[in-house]
Amino acid sequence: MDPDRTPTPEELEDCATFAVAVLEEAGRAALAYFRRAPAVDDKAGAGAPFDPVTEADREVERLVRARIAARFPGHAVLGEEEGVGAGSGRVGWTLDPIDGTRGFLAGFVQWGMLLALTVDGAPVLGVVHQPYTNETWWGTARGSRFRRGGEASAVRVRPCPEPGAAILASTDPHLFAEAEADAFHALRRAVRLVRYGSDCYAYCLLASGQLDLVVESGLGPWDVQALIPLIEGAGGVVTDWRGDACAAGGRVLAAGDPALHRWALERLAAVP
Amino acid sequence: MDPDRTPTPEELEDCATFAVAVLEEAGRAALAYFRRAPAVDDKAGAGAPFDPVTEADREVERLVRARIAARFPGHAVLGEEEGVGAGSGRVGWTLDPIDGTRGFLAGFVQWGMLLALTVDGAPVLGVVHQPYTNETWWGTARGSRFRRGGEASAVRVRPCPEPGAAILASTDPHLFAEAEADAFHALRRAVRLVRYGSDCYAYCLLASGQLDLVVESGLGPWDVQALIPLIEGAGGVVTDWRGDACAAGGRVLAAGDPALHRWALERLAAVP
Repeated sequence: MDPDRTPTPEELEDCATFAVAVLEEAGRAALAYFRRAPAVDDKAGAGAPFDPVTEADREVERLVRARIAARFPGHAVLGEEEGVGAGSGRVGWTLDPIDGTRGFLAGFVQWGMLLALTVDGAPVLGVVHQPYTNETWWGTARGSRFRRGGEASAVRVRPCPEPGAAILASTDPHLFAEAEADAFHALRRAVRLVRYGSDCYAYCLLASGQLDLVVESGLGPWDVQALIPLIEGAGGVVTDWRGDACAAGGRVLAAGDPALHRWALERLAAVP
Repeated sequence: MDPDRTPTPEELEDCATFAVAVLEEAGRAALAYFRRAPAVDDKAGAGAPFDPVTEADREVERLVRARIAARFPGHAVLGEEEGVGAGSGRVGWTLDPIDGTRGFLAGFVQWGMLLALTVDGAPVLGVVHQPYTNETWWGTARGSRFRRGGEASAVRVRPCPEPGAAILASTDPHLFAEAEADAFHALRRAVRLVRYGSDCYAYCLLASGQLDLVVESGLGPWDVQALIPLIEGAGGVVTDWRGDACAAGGRVLAAGDPALHRWALERLAAVP
């Protein structure tokens, strides 16, 4: 596959099959460390909040990079732990070896492994795999799918135009800066139900039509790029808090229903 | 089994085998509704926060009550959805058909089904089952165990006397009343890592030595009774915020390490 031009639909389908297989293989590597006290380093500086990276994150990133280099030499890879490597063409991969490392460390299951294919920096394929529950979601502009053993099935967001009927998810309300928190809490008080502790898992459930809104800030590009094609392929909307593209990360707003996205955007867009 | 006297160790072992089997059967019933838009009612009054009960909660409670009545006629059953039923002896059962109904409704997996055996109101056996991940934890004074397919293995809390190394879990920081919240946030700022969205799952991970501290308030007796023998059987400590028995629910503090429990208690006991 030529790294200097947009993949054909058939090439994109090949990439999806490849990415799902690679994450499922990497999932077995991650599980060898899950709930087994993996070695942990703190990426944060002194005085900053704990920002863990484990030997599982590092091993998964090495494994996925090696598989991409073997199959697609010349493709660039952006990964959370090792930065940008190889390649200089228009096509690249973005990897978060374990999204939700805090949850992984605590033994919870709402974490996942994220891999996106990008063209000129925009994600066109996104895959999420949770190896403990054996769930995989992936999506492109042609649609989004879910598999848990057996055959894949199409996933689709659900309609929910009314905030008072909506389920909102976010990873941790204390991750917001002060002005962000005020806007978030206004949304929180208007919806029907709020769940925390979600990381990537919430976006997958949104794509599957289980919940309606995800609001977060401070994300890296690796945290969000795989989620964008998944959500859009399922009929949802995902942008930053001003309604612009969010592939760079930062503040993210995802909604299953476009009307609910507009409602939330009206309350978030003014945050300085 | 005579409902008017303390069960022998052999009878308790029989009850454990029975309770695990019943929850695993009930788990299959719950999964028929999971991620399939179950009918939902709001138990809260007008103006109060959404307090959902689904048809899954009700069907699980009916099923478990029927199995207990068939096997142990004369045993009282206290259940979240139907209150106290039958029996007047010293031995009874306490059931939360789905603990974490909000998470269940949102499609998350960190919910569970709880069943405790009580003698004179004190829980002596506790079982937790999560059917989507196929995980079961159970405990008595003789020890605690975990099974995910295959054979059961013993679980044990981990040592963690230092707050700065501890992982703390709680379901939702906005469930605390104001004075409670101040004390909770003081703990939150002192520990290494915090995770939300946990419900019963956090207490199971504490018993398994994966995390160190769970702090919550506003629990019902059905939310906590199954967790007490599980945590104590694994070597942990679980009390209310004054260090007294917490079988009635309310404010709950669980710790894997007794020293960490004492440290947290010093910061919670003064809450009016």
